[in-house]
Amino acid sequence: MIELPGSTLFGAANLPYCVFSVPRDPRRRVGVAIGDHVLDVVPLAESGGATELVSLLATPTLNPLLAAGRRTWTELRERLVEWVHGPADALRPHLLAADDVRLHLPVEVGDYVDFYSSEHHARNVGRIFRPGSEPLSPNWKHLPIGYHGRTGTIVVSGTDIVRPKGQRRGEGGPEFGPSTRLDIEAEVGFVVGTSTRVGESVAVGEFAEHVFGMFLLNDWSARDIQSWESTPLGPFLGKSFATSVSPWVVPLDALEAARVAPPPRDPPLLPYLCDVDERGLDLELEVALNGHVVSRPPFATMYWTAAQQLAHLTVNGASLRPGDVFASGTVSGPEKDQRGSLLELSWGGSEPITLADESTRTFLEDGDEVAITGTAPGTAGTRIGLGEVRGRILPSR
Amino acid sequence: MIELPGSTLFGAANLPYCVFSVPRDPRRRVGVAIGDHVLDVVPLAESGGATELVSLLATPTLNPLLAAGRRTWTELRERLVEWVHGPADALRPHLLAADDVRLHLPVEVGDYVDFYSSEHHARNVGRIFRPGSEPLSPNWKHLPIGYHGRTGTIVVSGTDIVRPKGQRRGEGGPEFGPSTRLDIEAEVGFVVGTSTRVGESVAVGEFAEHVFGMFLLNDWSARDIQSWESTPLGPFLGKSFATSVSPWVVPLDALEAARVAPPPRDPPLLPYLCDVDERGLDLELEVALNGHVVSRPPFATMYWTAAQQLAHLTVNGASLRPGDVFASGTVSGPEKDQRGSLLELSWGGSEPITLADESTRTFLEDGDEVAITGTAPGTAGTRIGLGEVRGRILPSR
Repeated sequence: MIELPGSTLFGAANLPYCVFSVPRDPRRRVGVAIGDHVLDVVPLAESGGATELVSLLATPTLNPLLAAGRRTWTELRERLVEWVHGPADALRPHLLAADDVRLHLPVEVGDYVDFYSSEHHARNVGRIFRPGSEPLSPNWKHLPIGYHGRTGTIVVSGTDIVRPKGQRRGEGGPEFGPSTRLDIEAEVGFVVGTSTRVGESVAVGEFAEHVFGMFLLNDWSARDIQSWESTPLGPFLGKSFATSVSPWVVPLDALEAARVAPPPRDPPLLPYLCDVDERGLDLELEVALNGHVVSRPPFATMYWTAAQQLAHLTVNGASLRPGDVFASGTVSGPEKDQRGSLLELSWGGSEPITLADESTRTFLEDGDEVAITGTAPGTAGTRIGLGEVRGRILPSR
Repeated sequence: MIELPGSTLFGAANLPYCVFSVPRDPRRRVGVAIGDHVLDVVPLAESGGATELVSLLATPTLNPLLAAGRRTWTELRERLVEWVHGPADALRPHLLAADDVRLHLPVEVGDYVDFYSSEHHARNVGRIFRPGSEPLSPNWKHLPIGYHGRTGTIVVSGTDIVRPKGQRRGEGGPEFGPSTRLDIEAEVGFVVGTSTRVGESVAVGEFAEHVFGMFLLNDWSARDIQSWESTPLGPFLGKSFATSVSPWVVPLDALEAARVAPPPRDPPLLPYLCDVDERGLDLELEVALNGHVVSRPPFATMYWTAAQQLAHLTVNGASLRPGDVFASGTVSGPEKDQRGSLLELSWGGSEPITLADESTRTFLEDGDEVAITGTAPGTAGTRIGLGEVRGRILPSR
């Protein structure tokens, strides 16, 4: 087996997928992270006698692999584990230094749904926007609230984010200009593999048959635009300008050791939302602003699990396509330094946070760079990395 | 020129596009309506020396044509007009009886945005749901309110609609079951052609450079699900189970004679939303339930035009892709028999409407069939048809 640094978060217990290209060959294809390298799996599959997998890997998105289904996902992972544990000499020609590859948007996204499943986040937002009244809406504990977002503006980590312009409340009526309350939302996105037909629903227990894996996601939000436009039909331009995702899709198989029981639910749920197994995930996120860690949101505290989100999303018979993405909503824990948005960290802009260079922030300034990373328990006492979603703010055009 | 019935709504002034196949040749390709026939344009382009157009027409969606842009759209339309006015003998071999072709979803939809742009509709909904309070939200007259819908459940006219199941308010807490308030929304959808890059905006006056045409759209809505789930992030499962569209995309070029000034706007608008030309459209819609006309919504009464909707949709820098669709929201006029939803026609279920067979309806029953059609002024005193979007309700599964 090839040697890996003992501290690597990208050992054989992880093996997340990406889509990459190299300068000398711009054809996009599927790769796998191992240590500090990207494994070029197509030639390995070709020479390793896995020709049936080549058509799923020599493609510019993960979608063919997503569509292939759970049996193929398991089979491919078994092959990868074999190859990684096999002779280093066979692997070495196909290991590319991370700096030499370009990582692309891994998935062609069909529909994108964003949920609102952290009770801490929802309560914080309620308190900030409607002080003195009940922070959670009456439906919040009965169903995972969500809405559809824009798929055409989902971009891969590293893409610069242009500060959006738009309408916001002003003293003498609405004003127009670059957003003055540009924010992040640290989230986890789930990538749908197997499709369903219209009229079909996915039960909570069928989650792993339909979901391939997860990636980190930053749901950039212009709070001034959002708060003016959202009544009565929800967020629109305050969100639609950009959503960034990590290039690394971590397969569910790598997250078995991270499964935990979700928090207790009270009041009791309607049967279609009842858990049948532990689908909480002990993911530890980290949000850095200009290199300074401002928050460590714990995903295990989420009220609604991804399995419940998917069951809800399909209970009306809405069909799924390979490449559909649904995200958790902002991940915020109970502590102040566990909040996944600047809205919460600065309490609506009233409590600026201080960065390493002694500068303060309420919302994002031009030139700011945000990076969300994460780790989780892997098998056999290992720890695995969840990739990174990074983006820098450019001034409005 | 081939002879057409004098009363046809599909003469040379119309020429809407579809995607069709025939039983003996399942390959989908672009067609054009003429009289009662579908013109198979691919062989006509091949033999008519328009080989540069063939690759845009011999494809299973309109997307390549949409991406080609305004100049190509105009060029193709000029060719079609030439062919239709040319010798009947040349055309006749390529005319297929409408009954012999199968019509498909004409567009591969990228993102789908649904607006809420009829003042009459928004006021009616406000009065029904919040009696005694101001029916319009404070932002309504300052921006066209909209939200993203689900693209994976957009289906072509004629597709049966399975009654969705979901959560709704109950006496002792939420209940689950088939929707008991299944409704329609008669709308007009606009089909985006030319793409834009992230960070770019489309000014009101650039509308025709980016929009190819329109089709009729039925935004099926489960009112009980919708009203329980929509706070605070807007409609989700109450809408995502199905959206039906007409197979016929009417090009903007066919609607020049239908252009009218929109209603006066008060208060004045921010500059990016100000009209530069008349982009209201004098479309007359008709909603039939089981063959009985229940409403005739006038599109000319819409407060916000499609050009304003597109300018708003992109003002934050959100990019467009060919095949993006944005819809008007329910079209309702000032009169009772001009309302585009059963919610309004039955005033929240309190005033049942009577059909031709003396049966009454508040919301849709299993087996009900809804058809939305429409007409508009065409050039030279003609009248053109806007196609049809039809769907029948099947019982919940």
